[in-house]
Amino acid sequence: MLQIGRLPKGAGNRITDVPGVKVGHCTVDEGDCHTGVTVVLPHGENPWLHPVTAATVVFNGYGKTTGLMQVDELGAIETPIALTNTLNVGKVHDAVVSWMIDRCKQDGHHLTSINPVVCECNDSGISDIQKRPVGEKEVFAAIDAASVDFAQGAVGAGRGTVCYGMKGGIGSASRLIHLGEETFTLGVLVQSNYGASADFRPECLPEGLAPSDKGSIILILATDLPLSARQLQRVLRRTSVGMARLGSYIGHGSGEVAVGFTTAPKTREGDFDTIRTLRENAMDLPFRAAGEAAEEAILQSMLHAEADKALDGREILSLKDYLAGLGK
Amino acid sequence: MLQIGRLPKGAGNRITDVPGVKVGHCTVDEGDCHTGVTVVLPHGENPWLHPVTAATVVFNGYGKTTGLMQVDELGAIETPIALTNTLNVGKVHDAVVSWMIDRCKQDGHHLTSINPVVCECNDSGISDIQKRPVGEKEVFAAIDAASVDFAQGAVGAGRGTVCYGMKGGIGSASRLIHLGEETFTLGVLVQSNYGASADFRPECLPEGLAPSDKGSIILILATDLPLSARQLQRVLRRTSVGMARLGSYIGHGSGEVAVGFTTAPKTREGDFDTIRTLRENAMDLPFRAAGEAAEEAILQSMLHAEADKALDGREILSLKDYLAGLGK
Amino acid sequence: MLQIGRLPKGAGNRITDVPGVKVGHCTVDEGDCHTGVTVVLPHGENPWLHPVTAATVVFNGYGKTTGLMQVDELGAIETPIALTNTLNVGKVHDAVVSWMIDRCKQDGHHLTSINPVVCECNDSGISDIQKRPVGEKEVFAAIDAASVDFAQGAVGAGRGTVCYGMKGGIGSASRLIHLGEETFTLGVLVQSNYGASADFRPECLPEGLAPSDKGSIILILATDLPLSARQLQRVLRRTSVGMARLGSYIGHGSGEVAVGFTTAPKTREGDFDTIRTLRENAMDLPFRAAGEAAEEAILQSMLHAEADKALDGREILSLKDYLAGLGK
Amino acid sequence: MLQIGRLPKGAGNRITDVPGVKVGHCTVDEGDCHTGVTVVLPHGENPWLHPVTAATVVFNGYGKTTGLMQVDELGAIETPIALTNTLNVGKVHDAVVSWMIDRCKQDGHHLTSINPVVCECNDSGISDIQKRPVGEKEVFAAIDAASVDFAQGAVGAGRGTVCYGMKGGIGSASRLIHLGEETFTLGVLVQSNYGASADFRPECLPEGLAPSDKGSIILILATDLPLSARQLQRVLRRTSVGMARLGSYIGHGSGEVAVGFTTAPKTREGDFDTIRTLRENAMDLPFRAAGEAAEEAILQSMLHAEADKALDGREILSLKDYLAGLGK
Repeated sequence: MLQIGRLPKGAGNRITDVPGVKVGHCTVDEGDCHTGVTVVLPHGENPWLHPVTAATVVFNGYGKTTGLMQVDELGAIETPIALTNTLNVGKVHDAVVSWMIDRCKQDGHHLTSINPVVCECNDSGISDIQKRPVGEKEVFAAIDAASVDFAQGAVGAGRGTVCYGMKGGIGSASRLIHLGEETFTLGVLVQSNYGASADFRPECLPEGLAPSDKGSIILILATDLPLSARQLQRVLRRTSVGMARLGSYIGHGSGEVAVGFTTAPKTREGDFDTIRTLRENAMDLPFRAAGEAAEEAILQSMLHAEADKALDGREILSLKDYLAGLGK
Repeated sequence: MLQIGRLPKGAGNRITDVPGVKVGHCTVDEGDCHTGVTVVLPHGENPWLHPVTAATVVFNGYGKTTGLMQVDELGAIETPIALTNTLNVGKVHDAVVSWMIDRCKQDGHHLTSINPVVCECNDSGISDIQKRPVGEKEVFAAIDAASVDFAQGAVGAGRGTVCYGMKGGIGSASRLIHLGEETFTLGVLVQSNYGASADFRPECLPEGLAPSDKGSIILILATDLPLSARQLQRVLRRTSVGMARLGSYIGHGSGEVAVGFTTAPKTREGDFDTIRTLRENAMDLPFRAAGEAAEEAILQSMLHAEADKALDGREILSLKDYLAGLGK
Repeated sequence: MLQIGRLPKGAGNRITDVPGVKVGHCTVDEGDCHTGVTVVLPHGENPWLHPVTAATVVFNGYGKTTGLMQVDELGAIETPIALTNTLNVGKVHDAVVSWMIDRCKQDGHHLTSINPVVCECNDSGISDIQKRPVGEKEVFAAIDAASVDFAQGAVGAGRGTVCYGMKGGIGSASRLIHLGEETFTLGVLVQSNYGASADFRPECLPEGLAPSDKGSIILILATDLPLSARQLQRVLRRTSVGMARLGSYIGHGSGEVAVGFTTAPKTREGDFDTIRTLRENAMDLPFRAAGEAAEEAILQSMLHAEADKALDGREILSLKDYLAGLGK
Repeated sequence: MLQIGRLPKGAGNRITDVPGVKVGHCTVDEGDCHTGVTVVLPHGENPWLHPVTAATVVFNGYGKTTGLMQVDELGAIETPIALTNTLNVGKVHDAVVSWMIDRCKQDGHHLTSINPVVCECNDSGISDIQKRPVGEKEVFAAIDAASVDFAQGAVGAGRGTVCYGMKGGIGSASRLIHLGEETFTLGVLVQSNYGASADFRPECLPEGLAPSDKGSIILILATDLPLSARQLQRVLRRTSVGMARLGSYIGHGSGEVAVGFTTAPKTREGDFDTIRTLRENAMDLPFRAAGEAAEEAILQSMLHAEADKALDGREILSLKDYLAGLGK
């Protein structure tokens, strides 16, 4: 039904179409807390022993993401990527440290340094954000639950998010990239929590739902296409296209961050890795895939989310209910 | 007729609505050369003696713009900004040096260093780009011709450009920003030369017109709103929204660069300037203005341009003729 | 005795010579844990209500610092700056969130978003880094203890650090900047934990003490000189000079990060701030001050630190004992 | 005699020790013009057909270098690198365009886009900089003259430069990097024109020779070590160590720019290149090599340059004469 762009979708139309990638949630609904954590695992191995080539882009840095500095320097991610709410970042960071210490111990390594990548959106409209209920138990549970087949909508880190004044959440989409005889997959997962409702496109939503653009959006991109960190960064920049097409002006109060990785293999020989990288003049396909998948992932997050209530009693509509009400 | 966004337009709906800003063209049509130069003057003073606070953003750095490094370091532009074609950048750079030497001599200064900001698009589809016909005479003529009332479409640096497979060129638009009792103006001027035709939105153009996104777009932003260089950079980033809404995926082969400045005054006292700067939480208005003006400026460049012929004989349609043909 | 550079030192020769700036430590010595936390407070007010203009520079991003993204975007710091060890970052981040929630509650604000700036060095040679003993109690104690008169050497976040194979720690220095009739102060505080011993200059240390450059250095710069965030960033870049002069080649494994702020006042009027900023051609003095203060702060950290023992039983010398042994 | 650092030097102790790299000069001495152009050729092939992996670092962006934007985006250099004086950049840029058009025509390609990398220092103390005597003839002559065995000191783009108040110029040095069974070479070439004389280390020069740090330094780094563009950028950052050790505080008025490339081979297969890249934890050796070679290259530029006269009649000493006078 939903047709965004021209490229073919992956089998499941989500980030886990990239072989090896898994996603897990832990959702917290306790009292006024309606929040959670979502993790993206690049593969089943110990990520510190087998880091993936990675990059980041900050479209608007009004946010509290951790770990970007080292990813930018080394072009690699060495932990599961965790998403949560704004004030819970520290506890989730610490929980990822704990998980990595345990995981390395199992593999016979005494870990003394690790760079958790933790991203966040502000879900204080729906959840009591000062409480910070996501800790080790929740992060470990999300990692344990990680699978190819994961829920979208108001789950995990998307439990309490709001997008263009409608209920937001976790959404995902994927695209296939055919190059020569080979087919590669590029997938995006978003935690959507941004946008002024009157800006939403192509269907303008009532302005009162979200008068200004606040709250942030996180975009996680995975691919098995062989790309250098520099090339991944170029691809990530194109996720902004998806956001702009849905109407965003990249609001001041909206932290907009993209983090991406490739699972393409490296062959180690002594002090060197032998790798493949895409030739630069073939980049238009992954660029298009990134823009299309980002736009669709945001819509999927809204289409999967059920209507909800804000802490102040306001009703937060679901986009699918709203469209149904309009007969669409 | 054309309604982009929500903010009010300036009196002339162009960059020169910002008080003091002038634009001049020199168009070259000689043999197979159909190219030119366009200059943007921040004010009527010697720009080296009176630099304006400035910033830059590179969305896709596949281009040959000069001068960005120093603008980024010092947050200032000290010359007229010149636009031309790709291979003519060196000669235009040198011509700006000549003009600045002369201008400083008039003002009693012996100039030994200057940082020309020269941007470019590749017009080799319509013009013999190897010939480089734009030199001192043409640059001086463009500066002399600079005025508030300037032509749009296939003139100056827009003479040979192509946008989404239609004839591109120079376009401009402006928006008004009301803050308290004050009204500020933000204007954008583009040299449009980018876009795959099938991507054009909301009206999809025939794919054959421009199968891939190549060629570049330059966006010059001017305002009289008091902004620091950091804030100007944030505003400039939002011009990407305008491009994305018209359909671009930020193609690999398209150099996309924005340069902006503010004419807001400084008061010098000894080693210090006293300035006003906008409070950060009031940034959403200029962000929106930048996105709207960029989107409209691109459309204006296409709506002002007449149909033309490529060097290979292909006809380059005008968007207005195309829309008229569709009865729009 | 120690003479670094040409500029006059501040009264206390430390970062707290900048009016309003305070530094506090909490040191943890429990079992195999010999670590801690150090905080730098820009002023006595609620930093979220009264953020300071700020900037960052990453010389080598192999580190786990949090908060830089938002500082870079908004040019402001809104919390105390906290230093600790690598694996304790998450817990300290969370403790700063707690402290800010409390502080804002006292001031009548319900905080839903905050950007803790937490920096770190790896003290796993001296301290059991997996234990993460620094939490709310320790961070609150460090903030409560903050004063103009603070200890240097192996205290707080410097408790377990090693520098050029000698005992490192917290060090500080300051310089005075005379401009016209006014005098400004620029101070640097470092957490020193980097350097290969054979590289140490001018006195080459035995290579075996630290065969390679690992471990990181954090440099916090404070000033009351009126600078924009862009200018502060330029000043911060010059702290690298101090490191290089002491011999560092900026090792791969050494996270090297500088964070700086200015306490210069802003006058709010409606949507605007009126500020002073230094004219660009007067920047050489603060540049020199930053380089000199950084170099001296590192030496002070080593000269204040007492000899210690590593977890593996190796003795970690103090630079002052070593120099005394050489008769210097 | 001159011993900088610990690593072994290449056979010729210069950038052309990297196999394939050549350097050429054209020096102009006409009336009051004492300037020129220096070119670095990565290899003997057409550089547009065979671009080299490349990166840039801007330590202080007060300069007029062209081409960095595209190098940063694509991680590649596609022309000879040219050095000249500040106001001659436009003409040299245009001359490189001409040379590339010719070269491509010889190879059967009609060139419509090219990204010249042109760097500069301000030699207006010794040369009449407004005259801009370096054009096509001079650039073509420098390229034609390029060889492994090239002159250092006051030649080419170094003809009129001044360093720490002494005569500067072109200097070069190289280091060998042993990894496993393989030996790689890393070389640096500088155009030296920076530094306040009283800052010079370890020998403090009389302050009056150059009271402030103005004028710029360009560092070109070449290697045959297999590095990605990201890794090359990391290596380039370490050239700052060489400058700092010689005393620089990175003056406001000194444009300090490093550009580097690797000649390591790529194997093309369809849309992909297969390449080797150094493992990140082996980076300390090239880091050290970059710092050592940069420091020595600057000293070599000064030791090769003869005393000269400034346009205002001041004598510009040679460092070797000065040291000889001191009996060193």
